[in-house]
Amino acid sequence: MKWIIDTDPGIDDAAAIITAIRSGLDVIAITTVHGNTPLKFTTRNALLLTELLDVSTPVYAGTERPLLQRPLDAAQVHGSDGFGDANLPAPRRQPEPVHAVDRIIEAAHQHSGQLSILAIGPLTNVALAIAKDRSITAKVSRLVIMGGTSHAQGNTSIVGEFNVLADPEAAAIVFESGIPITLVPWETTTKAVIPAAAFAAIRSSSSRLAQTFLTISEPLCETTRRFLGMEGIVLCDLVAAGVAIDPAMVTEQVHTYVGVETAGTLARGLTAVDYARHSGRQPNATVCLDVDRDKLTALFVQAVSA
Amino acid sequence: MKWIIDTDPGIDDAAAIITAIRSGLDVIAITTVHGNTPLKFTTRNALLLTELLDVSTPVYAGTERPLLQRPLDAAQVHGSDGFGDANLPAPRRQPEPVHAVDRIIEAAHQHSGQLSILAIGPLTNVALAIAKDRSITAKVSRLVIMGGTSHAQGNTSIVGEFNVLADPEAAAIVFESGIPITLVPWETTTKAVIPAAAFAAIRSSSSRLAQTFLTISEPLCETTRRFLGMEGIVLCDLVAAGVAIDPAMVTEQVHTYVGVETAGTLARGLTAVDYARHSGRQPNATVCLDVDRDKLTALFVQAVSA
Amino acid sequence: MKWIIDTDPGIDDAAAIITAIRSGLDVIAITTVHGNTPLKFTTRNALLLTELLDVSTPVYAGTERPLLQRPLDAAQVHGSDGFGDANLPAPRRQPEPVHAVDRIIEAAHQHSGQLSILAIGPLTNVALAIAKDRSITAKVSRLVIMGGTSHAQGNTSIVGEFNVLADPEAAAIVFESGIPITLVPWETTTKAVIPAAAFAAIRSSSSRLAQTFLTISEPLCETTRRFLGMEGIVLCDLVAAGVAIDPAMVTEQVHTYVGVETAGTLARGLTAVDYARHSGRQPNATVCLDVDRDKLTALFVQAVSA
Amino acid sequence: MKWIIDTDPGIDDAAAIITAIRSGLDVIAITTVHGNTPLKFTTRNALLLTELLDVSTPVYAGTERPLLQRPLDAAQVHGSDGFGDANLPAPRRQPEPVHAVDRIIEAAHQHSGQLSILAIGPLTNVALAIAKDRSITAKVSRLVIMGGTSHAQGNTSIVGEFNVLADPEAAAIVFESGIPITLVPWETTTKAVIPAAAFAAIRSSSSRLAQTFLTISEPLCETTRRFLGMEGIVLCDLVAAGVAIDPAMVTEQVHTYVGVETAGTLARGLTAVDYARHSGRQPNATVCLDVDRDKLTALFVQAVSA
Repeated sequence: MKWIIDTDPGIDDAAAIITAIRSGLDVIAITTVHGNTPLKFTTRNALLLTELLDVSTPVYAGTERPLLQRPLDAAQVHGSDGFGDANLPAPRRQPEPVHAVDRIIEAAHQHSGQLSILAIGPLTNVALAIAKDRSITAKVSRLVIMGGTSHAQGNTSIVGEFNVLADPEAAAIVFESGIPITLVPWETTTKAVIPAAAFAAIRSSSSRLAQTFLTISEPLCETTRRFLGMEGIVLCDLVAAGVAIDPAMVTEQVHTYVGVETAGTLARGLTAVDYARHSGRQPNATVCLDVDRDKLTALFVQAVSA
Repeated sequence: MKWIIDTDPGIDDAAAIITAIRSGLDVIAITTVHGNTPLKFTTRNALLLTELLDVSTPVYAGTERPLLQRPLDAAQVHGSDGFGDANLPAPRRQPEPVHAVDRIIEAAHQHSGQLSILAIGPLTNVALAIAKDRSITAKVSRLVIMGGTSHAQGNTSIVGEFNVLADPEAAAIVFESGIPITLVPWETTTKAVIPAAAFAAIRSSSSRLAQTFLTISEPLCETTRRFLGMEGIVLCDLVAAGVAIDPAMVTEQVHTYVGVETAGTLARGLTAVDYARHSGRQPNATVCLDVDRDKLTALFVQAVSA
Repeated sequence: MKWIIDTDPGIDDAAAIITAIRSGLDVIAITTVHGNTPLKFTTRNALLLTELLDVSTPVYAGTERPLLQRPLDAAQVHGSDGFGDANLPAPRRQPEPVHAVDRIIEAAHQHSGQLSILAIGPLTNVALAIAKDRSITAKVSRLVIMGGTSHAQGNTSIVGEFNVLADPEAAAIVFESGIPITLVPWETTTKAVIPAAAFAAIRSSSSRLAQTFLTISEPLCETTRRFLGMEGIVLCDLVAAGVAIDPAMVTEQVHTYVGVETAGTLARGLTAVDYARHSGRQPNATVCLDVDRDKLTALFVQAVSA
Repeated sequence: MKWIIDTDPGIDDAAAIITAIRSGLDVIAITTVHGNTPLKFTTRNALLLTELLDVSTPVYAGTERPLLQRPLDAAQVHGSDGFGDANLPAPRRQPEPVHAVDRIIEAAHQHSGQLSILAIGPLTNVALAIAKDRSITAKVSRLVIMGGTSHAQGNTSIVGEFNVLADPEAAAIVFESGIPITLVPWETTTKAVIPAAAFAAIRSSSSRLAQTFLTISEPLCETTRRFLGMEGIVLCDLVAAGVAIDPAMVTEQVHTYVGVETAGTLARGLTAVDYARHSGRQPNATVCLDVDRDKLTALFVQAVSA
C-alpha cells in the first residue's frame, strides 16, 4: 500500500509523520493544507520534517483556505508558526511544483486500489480532489482520518473538533464520497495520551530530530495539562498514524454511517455517528473508539528517538 | 417541595409516576402531553395510573401536538395506546377542566420557589408555560428532565432522543429559559437498566398495580432485548423520577451549558453538552451521567410491588 | 364577523387600530404583544388609543418575549416608548385580567366561524394560542397579517421583515396552522405610502386623537424620507387594517403556499411565497401584492380626523 | 478582454454561446459542467456547437457532480441529452486533455486582469478553481453569472433558481470570493423573453446552425408557454451573454451584497439581495434587474441566422 499524508503540521502532525515514515509506511507524498497554522508554515514545517528525517519524500502545497468556513487556526496550541515558535531554520528543500489536489488525483490513478491517504488536517485538499475528479473515489483504498468526535465532545466548539470544524463542507464531501474511511475521533486520541515518562527516553536521544521534537512539543505538554488535566501529551494525529501503520492497534471500533452536519449554530461541524443505525444509510466509516496506548507509545518513542 | 409530573405515559412514564408517588414525592398535579402516544391516550393512562395507585392527584390534559415538528410517536415501543395495547378498562376519573399549561403557570405562582417539575415527555407543555408567562422562570425551582443525550447517541435519529426530537423548538425554549435543569439523558438511562431478576419480586406481588404493570411492560422487555441487546428493561423516565426523589442517586454528573439544536438535517434535536466550556455560556443544566442502579431498582420494585 | 386586533403599538399600529375601529370593524378585543417596543409600552399604548377613541374595547396583555429569538425592537422607528417618546399621559384604564393568548382561544370558541384576527405585531400570541389549543384552527375564520415579504426585500435583515423576524418560530407555527391567511407583506405596504398631502386634512382637525397622532407620527415621516426616499409616511399595519375592513381594497393578489424559514444565517425569517407552485403544498395564504392607495388614504384620513 | 464560457448546454446555453461567439466576444475556452444534463452530454453539446459555429474554440470538460447537493437535472426542459433529444450526430472534435478547473486557473494567471468568465451553469467548476487557487480571485476581472433570483421567485424550488440550487455550496464559494460579479437572475431573464416573431427570421435562414437551433429549441417554446404562459422562448443564459457582450444592454441594475443561503429546508439555494443594505457587507455583485429586450433579440437573431 502506498500512502499520502495530507497534513497541517502542527506538533502532533510532526509526531504522526515521523512515526509513519520511521515505521516504514510507504509514504509517496506529503500534501499540505491550511489548518493549525497558515499554509506557508504547514508547508515549511513539512519540508523541515523531511530534512530532519533525512528522507526525500516530496512535499506538495495545497489549499490556503477552507471552502466556505472562515479560516480557523490553532496558534494557541501549536504556536503561530505551528512548531511552537521555536525559531527553526528555514528548510533548504522546496515544495514540488504540483498542487496537492492534483498530486492526490494523480496518485489515485497511478496506484489505483493501492493508495491510502492519512488525512490529519482539515479536509479541504481531499474534498477538492474528490470534487474535481469523482472517479478517484473508486480508486483510493482508504482514508485514515484524524477528525471529528465519537461522542460530540468537541475540542473547538461544543461539539466541533478542529479538523472538521475548520472546513465542515469539505468534511461532508469526504464522508459522502464513498471512499472507505477509518476515523480516529478526538475523544479516542485523548485516551491515547503519551505519558510524560515516554519523554525521558526521547530526551536521552541525541538525534537532532528528537531534540527538535522536544523543543517544539514543550508547549503542548503544558496545554494538555491545562485544558485536559492530563500529564503527558495528547498527539491526536499520531493516533491516526498508529492506526494506519498497524490497524491491530485499534482495540475497539464500530463500523457505521457517519455524517457531517454543516447547518446550525450549535451543531455545525458535528460528526454524527450512527451507533444504533437509525439513519438507514450504508456504513461509510470505521470509527476507532480505543487503541492500544502502550503499543502506540512504544512505536512513537522508537520512531522519534532513533 | 411540590412537584408536577409532566408526562406522556408510556410504560416508563408509568414506572416513574408509580415510583414518584409511592416514594412520597409531593405530586400536586400530573400534566399530560402528546408523545409516546396521542394526548387522549396519555391522559387516559395518567388517569388509570392514579386509580391503580388509589390517589386523587389531579390530572390536567395539555398539548396535542409539537410546536413545529411533525408529530412523532413511539407506538412500536409502547403500543398504540401507550400501555402495550393491553385492553385496560377506561378510567372512571376525568381530567380537570384546566389546561396543563395554565396549571403549570398557576402552580409556579402558588408555590413560588417551592415547585419543581419532573418532565418526562416532549417539552411542549413546559415550553408553552414559559412562553406564555416568562415570570415563572424565576419561580420554578427546578426541572428534572428525561430527555436528550449526553454523548449524541440518539434513540430516534442518529443523535436525537425521542422527547427532544419530538419537539426541538419546545426543548430549546426550556433550555434557554433560565430555570435550573437536571437532565437525565438517554445514555444514562440505558446504564440503569432494571434487571430481569427484579421482575420476580414484582411478579410475586398480588396487587392489581403490580399485575397491570407487568402486563403492559412485557413488550418493553422484548424491545430492550432486541434493540439494546440487554436483559431487563430500560425505563428511561423512571431514572428521572429516581433522581427527583433522591438526588444522591446520581453518581456522576456535570454542571454546564446544554443547548438544543433546531436546524440541520442530521443534528436537529441534538442536545449539545458543553463539557469543555467552549461556548462561554452560563451553565444551565446538571447532566446526570450515571446513577446508582441498585438503589433505583430497589426503589422501583418496592413502589410497584407495594 | 368579530375581530381581535393583536398588536404592538407602534405608530402604524395606532393608525391601524384607529382606522379599524372608526370604520366600524367589530373589534371585540385588542391583544398586545412585544415588538416595536416592550410589552408594557404596547399595552399602555393600546389603552391610550382606546381612551383617545373613546371606546371600551377591552385590552389584554400578552407575551413579553419571542419564543426563541432574542428580542428585537424598532425603537429607532417608533421611539423607545413606541409612540415617538411624546410624553403622553398614562392611561386611566387597565388591561383585563386575562392573558391575551387565552382571550384569543376563548373568542375562537365563543365565535366559532365568526372570528377573524388582525395580527399586526410579532406572531407570538397567535402562535401560542394555536399551540395551546389546536382546535381553534378550525374555528378562526381568517388571519389578516401584516408581516413578511412578498419578494424577499426585508426591512430588518436582508430578507427579513420585522414582525416575522422578531419571532420566526411563532410565524412558522401560524403559517403551518391551517387557518386561512391574508398576508400584507412589507413591499406592498411601501406601495401604499400615505402622501404628505393627506396630513393637511388631519392637521385641520381639532380632535385630540388627530393631534396626538400627528405628534407621535412625526418621526416616522422623517424615517420614511430617510430610509425609503419617499415623501409621506409608510404605515404598514394600516394597510392590513384597510384590507380587513374592505377586502376589495386589494387590487392584486396571489393565493398560494407561503412558508417561513427558521434556519440559516441569511434566510432566517424569510417568507417563501410559492408563486410558481414548486412545493406541491396546499395554498395557505392570499398574498396582497397591491392595494388601492387612494381608497386607503381616504379611509385613514376620515378615521383619524373624525 | 478574454472570456471563458462555463456552461452546461442546454438550449439556452447554446443560444448564449452562439451569440457570444458570433458577436465577437474573445472566447478562449469553453468549460463544461454538469447541470441541465450530465457532463458527457454538456461536453458533447459544447463540441457540437463549436462545429456548427465552425470555430476552433477549445472545450474543456469539468465536474460531473455538485459539491454536496444531490445532482439535479433539467431534462424536462432540455431533453435527456440537453439538446431536445434531437438525435444530433456525435461531434468529430474531442475535449482538450486538461480539466476545466485547471484551464480556468491557468487562464486567470495568463490573462491576469484581462479575463472574464461567463458562467451559465451550476458554479461547481468556478468554485473549485477558486477553492484550489485563491490567488485567482485577484486576477479574474469579472464573473457574469446567470443564476439565482432577484426577488425570491424560484424556477426549481419556491425560492431556488436551477443553477444556484444545483450546487448551493459552490455558489456560496463564488459569491464570497471577492471576484466582481454581474448577476443575471431568473426573473430578469423572464422579462427578456425572445418573441415568437423573432423565430421567423431564424427560420428563413438556411444555415445548418439556424436549422439545428430551431430543431433543438422547439420543446422550450412549448415549455415557456406551458409554465410561464408566455409566447416566445425564455433563453436565460442568452441574457447573460447579451450583458457580457454589451453591458449597456442593462437598463436597470443594483450594486449591493448578494449572499447564498445553504441551510434551511425552504431557503436552501436562495440568493439574498441586500437592496436596503441591512447586512453591512461590502457589495459583491451588480444585479441586472432589466435589459433591453429588443436589442438582445436583434443580437440573437443576427447571430443565429448568420
